[in-house]
Amino acid sequence: MEQRNRGKEAEKLKLLKISPWSVSCEDGSQETLDFRESVFSQGNGYMGVRGYPPEGEKKHGFERSTFLSGFFEYIKPGTTDMVNQPDFSVFRLVLNGRELRECTCTGFCEELDFRNGALTRRYVASDAEGRRTRVETVRFLSMADVHAAGVRIRLTPENYDGEVTLTAGIDGGVVNLPISDDQLTQNVEVAQLWGRITLRPAVKGGGLTALTDYSKRAVSMEYRLDDHGGNYAWEPAFADSFAGEKAVIPVHEGQAVTVDKLVAVYSYRDGASPAEAALAAADACAQRGFDGMLKDTASAWNAIWQAADVELDAPDEWQGGVRYNIFQLVQTDPRSDPHASIGARGLMHGRYKGCYFWDTEIFMLPLFLHTDPQAAKNLLLYRYHTLEDAVKSARGFSLPGARYPWMASDTGFEQCGTWDTGCCEIHITADIAYAVGRYLEVTGDDDFFRDCAAEILIQTARYWTERFTYDEASDRYNLLFVKGPDEYCGVTTNNLYTVWLASENLRLARDAVARMKKEYPREWESLRERLDFHEEEAAAWEDRMRKSVRRYDEERRLWIQDDTFEKLEPLNPADYKEDDIPLYHKISYDRLQRYQVLKQADVLMLMAMRPKDFTPEQKRTAWNYYEPKTLHDSTLSFGIHALMAAQVGRTEEASRYFEKSLFLDLRDVMKNTAREGIHTAALGATWQALVFGFAGLWADADGVSCTPQLPREISGMRFGFQYRGERYRVQIDGKRAQVERLGR
Amino acid sequence: MEQRNRGKEAEKLKLLKISPWSVSCEDGSQETLDFRESVFSQGNGYMGVRGYPPEGEKKHGFERSTFLSGFFEYIKPGTTDMVNQPDFSVFRLVLNGRELRECTCTGFCEELDFRNGALTRRYVASDAEGRRTRVETVRFLSMADVHAAGVRIRLTPENYDGEVTLTAGIDGGVVNLPISDDQLTQNVEVAQLWGRITLRPAVKGGGLTALTDYSKRAVSMEYRLDDHGGNYAWEPAFADSFAGEKAVIPVHEGQAVTVDKLVAVYSYRDGASPAEAALAAADACAQRGFDGMLKDTASAWNAIWQAADVELDAPDEWQGGVRYNIFQLVQTDPRSDPHASIGARGLMHGRYKGCYFWDTEIFMLPLFLHTDPQAAKNLLLYRYHTLEDAVKSARGFSLPGARYPWMASDTGFEQCGTWDTGCCEIHITADIAYAVGRYLEVTGDDDFFRDCAAEILIQTARYWTERFTYDEASDRYNLLFVKGPDEYCGVTTNNLYTVWLASENLRLARDAVARMKKEYPREWESLRERLDFHEEEAAAWEDRMRKSVRRYDEERRLWIQDDTFEKLEPLNPADYKEDDIPLYHKISYDRLQRYQVLKQADVLMLMAMRPKDFTPEQKRTAWNYYEPKTLHDSTLSFGIHALMAAQVGRTEEASRYFEKSLFLDLRDVMKNTAREGIHTAALGATWQALVFGFAGLWADADGVSCTPQLPREISGMRFGFQYRGERYRVQIDGKRAQVERLGR
Repeated sequence: MEQRNRGKEAEKLKLLKISPWSVSCEDGSQETLDFRESVFSQGNGYMGVRGYPPEGEKKHGFERSTFLSGFFEYIKPGTTDMVNQPDFSVFRLVLNGRELRECTCTGFCEELDFRNGALTRRYVASDAEGRRTRVETVRFLSMADVHAAGVRIRLTPENYDGEVTLTAGIDGGVVNLPISDDQLTQNVEVAQLWGRITLRPAVKGGGLTALTDYSKRAVSMEYRLDDHGGNYAWEPAFADSFAGEKAVIPVHEGQAVTVDKLVAVYSYRDGASPAEAALAAADACAQRGFDGMLKDTASAWNAIWQAADVELDAPDEWQGGVRYNIFQLVQTDPRSDPHASIGARGLMHGRYKGCYFWDTEIFMLPLFLHTDPQAAKNLLLYRYHTLEDAVKSARGFSLPGARYPWMASDTGFEQCGTWDTGCCEIHITADIAYAVGRYLEVTGDDDFFRDCAAEILIQTARYWTERFTYDEASDRYNLLFVKGPDEYCGVTTNNLYTVWLASENLRLARDAVARMKKEYPREWESLRERLDFHEEEAAAWEDRMRKSVRRYDEERRLWIQDDTFEKLEPLNPADYKEDDIPLYHKISYDRLQRYQVLKQADVLMLMAMRPKDFTPEQKRTAWNYYEPKTLHDSTLSFGIHALMAAQVGRTEEASRYFEKSLFLDLRDVMKNTAREGIHTAALGATWQALVFGFAGLWADADGVSCTPQLPREISGMRFGFQYRGERYRVQIDGKRAQVERLGR
Repeated sequence: MEQRNRGKEAEKLKLLKISPWSVSCEDGSQETLDFRESVFSQGNGYMGVRGYPPEGEKKHGFERSTFLSGFFEYIKPGTTDMVNQPDFSVFRLVLNGRELRECTCTGFCEELDFRNGALTRRYVASDAEGRRTRVETVRFLSMADVHAAGVRIRLTPENYDGEVTLTAGIDGGVVNLPISDDQLTQNVEVAQLWGRITLRPAVKGGGLTALTDYSKRAVSMEYRLDDHGGNYAWEPAFADSFAGEKAVIPVHEGQAVTVDKLVAVYSYRDGASPAEAALAAADACAQRGFDGMLKDTASAWNAIWQAADVELDAPDEWQGGVRYNIFQLVQTDPRSDPHASIGARGLMHGRYKGCYFWDTEIFMLPLFLHTDPQAAKNLLLYRYHTLEDAVKSARGFSLPGARYPWMASDTGFEQCGTWDTGCCEIHITADIAYAVGRYLEVTGDDDFFRDCAAEILIQTARYWTERFTYDEASDRYNLLFVKGPDEYCGVTTNNLYTVWLASENLRLARDAVARMKKEYPREWESLRERLDFHEEEAAAWEDRMRKSVRRYDEERRLWIQDDTFEKLEPLNPADYKEDDIPLYHKISYDRLQRYQVLKQADVLMLMAMRPKDFTPEQKRTAWNYYEPKTLHDSTLSFGIHALMAAQVGRTEEASRYFEKSLFLDLRDVMKNTAREGIHTAALGATWQALVFGFAGLWADADGVSCTPQLPREISGMRFGFQYRGERYRVQIDGKRAQVERLGR
């Protein structure tokens, strides 16, 4: 049994070929399909599709996943789910009267190209009579116009004359698979969120508008067919929820038939008339054509890579892996949309109901902050736009100010249903304030400070003011009933990470008030009045910053995670964990919280985020103490450990942790990529390990520093970043780093 | 607004007339109907009905509540609900072509008689033409044969000759109102748990068998009509789910028409053929007749009152109130059924999905323990019969032994869905062990000890062995992440109540092992082998008993509730609470847990349960410290405070708290009796305050003591109890108590 598992594992490791600019696979089997669908996911920030075969037929509607950024619907009072959208990829294919599933496939190859985002699938389908058809499909979501996508199918009879029947269109017959946020709960039901679907017939094209049942939220998808002059006899093929057409196409040996489907997608989020917008956009797509659109997309990607690429002198697999991480994160970021954020599985899977966590601000944001500040700003604007909900949420907890939800969707109201996490994992509010602070430090964006950041910082600080509990006996403030990033810590007191960042939040608010007064007196007057701010509030902030409880053991030079951590029962992880599958599958969550083990970095996380607050000795001590106790049962853990390992000079461990994060999905480290999709926080953590860890870059109000700590596998690296409106270029060769300012 | 509320309140106080042997009401308005339905609930332990009018028509199926003890069904995987049963009470009445709702009612009086459990309703219905009809209905559930019930309707035209149309039968058209166990969640959906319903026609009688949809659990109800020789022209009146008949009855001025419906109920829980059993039983009912059955019921109640009555020299309202509390608790106890227990709202409401809590063992059991030991034993046998589920539950928490669920139904698997309560309010396991210990002390039941108790005690002790966490630094055991009876305490460490009772559980197990070895060596050998018991286990128990952390402040002579209690923010309850409505409606649960306020007795609860473990001084100190901080936001709080007030000699406060508990539902103290039903734990707490508090009775292995502490309102009391197989009688006159042994 164990032997067999190891065998499977080895197979998975070599399943994908990771090249510097692409990932490919020559295994087209059903067993690996879900995994491949995850790793070959595509997106353009506006929409995302899992890498499912356009021409294949999956049994269930929920298995064909297409998501739109910020498109949610209620599944019960107060609880939303990200809506699985109509399937615009679908082509239905019958070869000489044979369904594709009756054929055997050989020569399979599938490749995702980072330079244009296109997914190409090629194989030869042979039927029982020995007729062989070369099949090639290409799909891309446009980066030049995020409402557009193209799907091409090309069929070439290798050894016969015959006919193929091709159906093309848009299929509204999809459902949601509502997924509990309890990691141990299996999903048992599907939900039909779509209500009325209106189909629109047209010649060589058509479309549909679907309305969600409850909120009547609309999506319109319009397609145009280009049969490359074939002039096949297309006939309408409409059904309940399918808008499409069908042609029986005569084919001849050695002659390719090519059909392109060009798609435009608009939703209620884009304005009042998504149907009209989609119609116009589809016509524009038809005019430009598949190849033109793909070319535009490649140009757009080229610009992204100019800003975000990290070139390595390292094995191809590392280079390709790094680009894959950046590529996937950029693909799923709603870049120009200030009303949406990035889900824990992006637009690549419905897990966690598409919700946004601290993952965005703490793990993913840094990449954008340094390579696309406008995109970073939009992620923070999403939080500004949900600030009002956060204020109402705080009231719901009988507290002033703003309390951001552990899980957010298109509303800022809590989407997490479990008490220990939803009520107690409150660091999210400080995380957002931290991210706002980092954004201001790195960009120097005064407008954002004045118009949005000051208000966020003041309202979140107000929350903390009363979330701390004053203890008269010790004249200190305790943070009671709190859960830190280490979710195996139980519900505890004075989690260091949370206390530290909450205090930081208070400091940022205090400084923001002072700066508003000084630099923007008129705007401050209006904000002060609107928020009914009183001077005593700042004094209360000061008091909590000074008197919050943070446990430091002078003798051991050790920062202690929380008040209960050292009371927990010791456990040797190696006795229980022999792979990277989370231990909560073997030992109950409830039991794990009484063992002295961490699910993921907690004190080390804090040190990674506030590198200047701790001495090298404190970092080393913390590493030596916490790292052996950490189970890495969260995908958020590896990258941060790689970063910290690099910082404390343990390059071999850094390299080992980095590989876990780098290949987390590509090698299915956690064994859940197939059924959960891409782990977006890990993508960002990989980038941080690389840039903040190995390259040793750090930019803040003091300026920029770069102290590389390359692992054995990397001899040099080159990348660009932005700081305070200017572009910089870093070149590292071994220990030597050169930072060049390129200007605006 | 406030003025008006006080006006309403005053009305509610005088709504009911409380007499020594009955409760009655002359208000028949719609506004008070839900409240009256709750307080006039009826039961016989096997079944229970809310006090809804047999002849009225309520709009919704869930508003006609009939429940059977232990009859649950799954509403989602792992979660059950108590099933609302077909309505056997219903009579449909049309007076001279007028619906009852078109008439005006005068002279209304409704009375519930504690001597036979009958609910009688009388009024005069007048129509627009001035025709007046006297209406009287009587309903009882038989205490002599718990499968039987009778409903009588008597109609007398006062000033006309005419006709009435009467429909009688059994209505399967009922649904469930699944109620969240979150006290703040509103109920929004009804659930249809019934699937196939088979109707059975017959002459002057009929019946139905209904099967739940999911588990195919059957209930059969059969009725017989007795029209007292009227020989009316009954015709079948069957519908989808209604089995019945109808007659148009000529009526004459001053002449009464009487129709009795005699009902028999059997379910899948009673054997393989509930339908046959119901048929035979209905025929027996018909033979005995309504008056004969009611007489039998009065005899059965007489026997119950012989054992359980508490006679007071006190105002009638107090005497009647005390009997009401005893009456309601006895009515809802499944007495002879060792596979069911008593829900938090008994058989009187679906709140908490009919689940069983610690309420049974800690609040209700003592009454039965002292007045009906066999009934007490059956309640504990329910826990023995779900021990296997508790063992499996412990495994689910990665722990050995048995872990009883916070909420149980017909399975012993956890029915509570919230993390802080369902996972952390673990004292339930120790509560059950405590109750087992009390049962053994008071009854001396050796068979139960040998056959059931020893196993329960050992398995529960094993759970605690690993639930404690050893702290090497202090050489002590902490109980981490625990919630005590005070549910406003957050999730904390070393809750004194839980630690104390857990240690007591370990002690009971240790003693049980020793006693089994000595007195039942053969049975022990078999049990030891079956449980795979090792001698080291007892040593581990000993270690935890000695080294568990219990905080006692020597200087203040104060037992401290838990490790965080004194770190909480002080709050003066009077500033926020001006009535008895729980504060969690005003301040969020999450916020309340950081205030130094108690939802209900915690340390005082422990002292009430273990009176000899604490000195009078410790009790006084605890009272002085905790009582002013207690919000009594649980109905479990008043009675225990009355008991403890009596014990610390504060008779005026005792009297005040006692009245809250005594009239909790009769005067709607918590303002939720209408929509939630009778609070069964408070019924038991009232009895404990009276007998353990005012009478000062205590029976344990040392014998029986009685030190009365009567409040001003009570000058004397007389009651019986049982101890070690013998009957005793207590007579108290002022400070003097006389305990007389009556023998077996």
